[in-house]
Amino acid sequence: MKRFITDHFLLENNTALNLYNDYAKDLPIVDYHCHIESSEIAEDKHYENIAQLWLGGDHYKWRLMRASGIDERYITGDAPDKEKFMMWARAVESAFGNPLYHWTNLELARYFDIDEPLTVLNAEDIWDKTEKILKSGKLTARSIMKMSNVEAICTTDDPADSLVYHEQIKDSDLTSKVLPAFRPDNIVDIEKSTFTDYLKKLEQVAGRTVKSIDDLKEVLVSRLDHFEAHGCRISDHGTEYLWYGKDLKVSADDVLAKRIADPEADLTREELTAYKTDLMLFFAREYARRGWTMQLHFGCKRNVNTVMLNKAGINCGCDTITGAFDIVTPLAGYMDELNSESLLPKMIIYSLNPVDNTVIDTLCGCFNDGSVPGKIQHGAAWWFNDNLSGMEDQLKSLCNQGSLPVFVGMLTDSRCFLSYTRHEYFRRIFCNMLGVEIERGRFPEDKRVVKDIIERVCYKNARDMLAL
Amino acid sequence: MKRFITDHFLLENNTALNLYNDYAKDLPIVDYHCHIESSEIAEDKHYENIAQLWLGGDHYKWRLMRASGIDERYITGDAPDKEKFMMWARAVESAFGNPLYHWTNLELARYFDIDEPLTVLNAEDIWDKTEKILKSGKLTARSIMKMSNVEAICTTDDPADSLVYHEQIKDSDLTSKVLPAFRPDNIVDIEKSTFTDYLKKLEQVAGRTVKSIDDLKEVLVSRLDHFEAHGCRISDHGTEYLWYGKDLKVSADDVLAKRIADPEADLTREELTAYKTDLMLFFAREYARRGWTMQLHFGCKRNVNTVMLNKAGINCGCDTITGAFDIVTPLAGYMDELNSESLLPKMIIYSLNPVDNTVIDTLCGCFNDGSVPGKIQHGAAWWFNDNLSGMEDQLKSLCNQGSLPVFVGMLTDSRCFLSYTRHEYFRRIFCNMLGVEIERGRFPEDKRVVKDIIERVCYKNARDMLAL
Amino acid sequence: MKRFITDHFLLENNTALNLYNDYAKDLPIVDYHCHIESSEIAEDKHYENIAQLWLGGDHYKWRLMRASGIDERYITGDAPDKEKFMMWARAVESAFGNPLYHWTNLELARYFDIDEPLTVLNAEDIWDKTEKILKSGKLTARSIMKMSNVEAICTTDDPADSLVYHEQIKDSDLTSKVLPAFRPDNIVDIEKSTFTDYLKKLEQVAGRTVKSIDDLKEVLVSRLDHFEAHGCRISDHGTEYLWYGKDLKVSADDVLAKRIADPEADLTREELTAYKTDLMLFFAREYARRGWTMQLHFGCKRNVNTVMLNKAGINCGCDTITGAFDIVTPLAGYMDELNSESLLPKMIIYSLNPVDNTVIDTLCGCFNDGSVPGKIQHGAAWWFNDNLSGMEDQLKSLCNQGSLPVFVGMLTDSRCFLSYTRHEYFRRIFCNMLGVEIERGRFPEDKRVVKDIIERVCYKNARDMLAL
Repeated sequence: MKRFITDHFLLENNTALNLYNDYAKDLPIVDYHCHIESSEIAEDKHYENIAQLWLGGDHYKWRLMRASGIDERYITGDAPDKEKFMMWARAVESAFGNPLYHWTNLELARYFDIDEPLTVLNAEDIWDKTEKILKSGKLTARSIMKMSNVEAICTTDDPADSLVYHEQIKDSDLTSKVLPAFRPDNIVDIEKSTFTDYLKKLEQVAGRTVKSIDDLKEVLVSRLDHFEAHGCRISDHGTEYLWYGKDLKVSADDVLAKRIADPEADLTREELTAYKTDLMLFFAREYARRGWTMQLHFGCKRNVNTVMLNKAGINCGCDTITGAFDIVTPLAGYMDELNSESLLPKMIIYSLNPVDNTVIDTLCGCFNDGSVPGKIQHGAAWWFNDNLSGMEDQLKSLCNQGSLPVFVGMLTDSRCFLSYTRHEYFRRIFCNMLGVEIERGRFPEDKRVVKDIIERVCYKNARDMLAL
Repeated sequence: MKRFITDHFLLENNTALNLYNDYAKDLPIVDYHCHIESSEIAEDKHYENIAQLWLGGDHYKWRLMRASGIDERYITGDAPDKEKFMMWARAVESAFGNPLYHWTNLELARYFDIDEPLTVLNAEDIWDKTEKILKSGKLTARSIMKMSNVEAICTTDDPADSLVYHEQIKDSDLTSKVLPAFRPDNIVDIEKSTFTDYLKKLEQVAGRTVKSIDDLKEVLVSRLDHFEAHGCRISDHGTEYLWYGKDLKVSADDVLAKRIADPEADLTREELTAYKTDLMLFFAREYARRGWTMQLHFGCKRNVNTVMLNKAGINCGCDTITGAFDIVTPLAGYMDELNSESLLPKMIIYSLNPVDNTVIDTLCGCFNDGSVPGKIQHGAAWWFNDNLSGMEDQLKSLCNQGSLPVFVGMLTDSRCFLSYTRHEYFRRIFCNMLGVEIERGRFPEDKRVVKDIIERVCYKNARDMLAL
Repeated sequence: MKRFITDHFLLENNTALNLYNDYAKDLPIVDYHCHIESSEIAEDKHYENIAQLWLGGDHYKWRLMRASGIDERYITGDAPDKEKFMMWARAVESAFGNPLYHWTNLELARYFDIDEPLTVLNAEDIWDKTEKILKSGKLTARSIMKMSNVEAICTTDDPADSLVYHEQIKDSDLTSKVLPAFRPDNIVDIEKSTFTDYLKKLEQVAGRTVKSIDDLKEVLVSRLDHFEAHGCRISDHGTEYLWYGKDLKVSADDVLAKRIADPEADLTREELTAYKTDLMLFFAREYARRGWTMQLHFGCKRNVNTVMLNKAGINCGCDTITGAFDIVTPLAGYMDELNSESLLPKMIIYSLNPVDNTVIDTLCGCFNDGSVPGKIQHGAAWWFNDNLSGMEDQLKSLCNQGSLPVFVGMLTDSRCFLSYTRHEYFRRIFCNMLGVEIERGRFPEDKRVVKDIIERVCYKNARDMLAL
């Protein structure tokens, strides 16, 4: 079959092609949000075969396979790796318009030098070829990072994490920086059955007991300090709904005490609001003081399929967009309170629902104060929107409502080392958008300006955000 | 004027043209959801003129005429047929971008061999030409189905229906299969003033009284059996909001008893939830056991214009999209409960609000279990979205989140026999999407794969779903 | 640099170019909704420099500057005009895809004969050139209106306004009509702290006291008469949420009395609903009787940033889209009640949330009664949607659901005289949409029909609405 991933891939005119080649292609990667396990870098993980790399934990692929009518045995079950891979070839070869089609073939091209798209007909050959390369040890966690020109990544870490692997990596031969990102969902999600156990873990790490919200904040400050000492410059919060309340009848301290006293206690909506509001304000103030950037992800309903949760655990591909709810009232109130204290941190806001794009962009515009370019901004198209049209839609909304050059750009959000190609994917889409609009006469071909936009969005803004 | 409906219509490059001609054009039609009256097929209905065919019951056209400033007399009023048609020509000739423009001219081209688009200038000629053809008896209900290469249709039928016309049709010379589809809204909508009368009708058909929810379910099982004996393989539910509740304080049995005791009784929100949840779970379990597919349509607010309701009745063009409400919580809960019982049927989900596209596609992805390709899927762009960009948007979302080849494809949803051209319309749009993306280099020109996608989506998936 | 605003700007094929040049370009402008101060026309306002014209009150520009990281001193602060302009050049030169990029350069081209797009490199020259022209007195409020071929505008006026400037303008040499539009938000927003003061102002203007809702309505009728005597044919209402209730336990009269008795009194949700429903029904009935058109704008949450509100006041760029809420239930109920009384006025409906497009278009379709073409219609893309893709999306939705030729077209919604170029911008986008679809074979090149669509949408419908 004809070569699929050519130099022109996604670049639909000469301007786009030149912009990509001249300004975007060779920029280093700063992947400021991913789910790579730091231990895998520390140990420089090796892979036996492509199924391990691709199908070991990728719920995007699992969903496509299930939709295609493939039995769970070949997905998260006990089928041999090669059979799983053959089934993946069956699902992906006809996945017209699905990002996995492009990702799969981009990864084959970049890391395995395979030009033909994967089909059921060549799957056997591709299995053999990739197995040979992987067994040779040329494609390990670290070597993939080197090949991919990765300057820095931010892993996603729990406050209780010792960051010992980050230390090991620092002492290794890897030139890419591997920084932690602070993700304290476990302490914010007081309604979860795992909360009190988690609190104990945190007490252990901090070497002290927590009896009040002030105790808790002291512990968290010590963890923030620990992360900061390891180069952390960014945090992340994930929540389904947005919680923010004022003038509530209950205090965060009461709610925490109630939960500690009885791990089974049901918390009311107001109690949840009181606790979460207090803690989220606390975190934001800390980030503002430290100059960190706060990421906020919302709108995902997780684990809606109980059978699968019991069978395959969380992150097995049974999460969905939450759909319509009021995001502006709580979010605007939250930001306004922080802003009134001069303690609104830099923020990147992501909703899983693409219909929120314009809403988010207009809200961000209300809290930019000129102190930092793009202080409050709309994050890259996330998860179910991380595809060609999802990215184009996010970019279009961002352009319509704000300033494109201050956008902090792409991230992989991935557990897999091969996903650095998503930066290439984004850069091609980005340069194509610019090139197409320029050739349509909607923006001038001003090299000074366009080069600057590309370099900032594809690299410099993220680098500066992390103070690299 | 120049010919409007050419071979290239909607096919914007050679790849698209070839795909359509080689793989899509000659596939039989399986119209698995329509509102054709089975009696009209049984009697092989004849038409006097094009106004009867087009303007007798088509609320799409009525809305366009009202928006254009045409008096109701020419719409649902007592103006002569020809005058109504002349007014329709006035409204449609300038209906740029409206699907009725394409549908109208596609129907003229395919069934009346008229190449010029309808305008006020040629309306008189077109009236004469179409009248001649219709009076000749060459275009009757059945002959249109034959001309259109219809392999099967599913009508939409109430559980109380005897299906006598379906039997008559079976004994006729028509080679197309005419199957019933089971639509029990009348028994689910317990809040409607017509409920108790409807219940009596059902009792009569079943030859027994209904005093409890168990009685009702027995009656419904007998009706499901009756439909199954007539080849039914699919059901349909229409509802504005989605109802699902757990651990309620009232039972469906109580609610039904209350309603039977007092047909005027107001039902609380919880009572409605209890009754509807119970019945909807019952139906889904039955469908799962029988291997039927369950269609679920929601998000339509009906009859919002009381003046018109009183004047022209229901389905007169005064329905609207409901707008924002929570669909995921009830729908995910409902599917999860059924799935936990291993009784989640095959489902096709349709929202009238196009902003729900991505939400629905991500939710569907959570309940596919690999047992059947596309077990839970997002239905074709419905009603107000059944237009060029609406279809493209639905397809784009479906591709982004799932597997295109398992999509069960197009349906007419129509009361009119000329609407089989909507399958042609869909196939052209579908092949155009494929052809455009292939020539843009976003999907390879792999004939084996592309042919398979087209045949499945445009024909085979629907055929298999109905076990034809 | 190459000329940016060429004759082909936004016109992507020859059909589009010809449609624009032949049918759209020279049509007069009827700007039926703007925020021009009538006093500025009466005094024929002169400008010292381009910063005064552009940056004096334009919160669109302020937001872009803040997002770009420019200090407030150069935005609403005390920096010299020229420095502000230089900062604007810095923000706008790289504002790829933002409407301000096009507006800025279109205004420079049309009013200052400057072909190059504004950059930091030519900003100094452009400052000098524009200053010279402005100081020459050739570009004043009225001369801009003349240059722009403005046939009529509707300002936005409070019921208490004397309309004295409108009288002065009528007696001036300006041939453009300057009509008032009636915007009674101040009397509908009973929850605002300014309400009782406003009521006193209204009493003063009317020369009588208001003790009951009937008193208030008599005063308002006298103001409506006053506006009508000054040529008013259109009203406007702005509200965040939509309020409509039936069978409430409290009357508008009670609520008004409570508020008059105690200006600090908190009003319940039901009280607000009762008052607002009553008044909004009253207004609509009046408009219907007078043959006026009622504009309804909703979905904007204002002044969410308290720091900026205190520093720079309202309309400083800190407003956002409200996001998801139920618009159909209250709006359909409101229209249905009026329609049942045969007192539903002509309406133009605007939501700030672009995801409401299809919902609004389908709702409008329910209340068109054929008495007037486009009686109930979806307004032009508003505020945050007033950009290229926002307009295209609004038009696409309108075409899909209704009749394009009855659309009343573009408005500037602007405080600035240079904004008449937004009509050119719209007309180019509009003719481009037509030209592109025609060359794609999706609509025939029927000059009679297409000319008529363009003339109606770009001029005649607005002219007829205002009975010019």
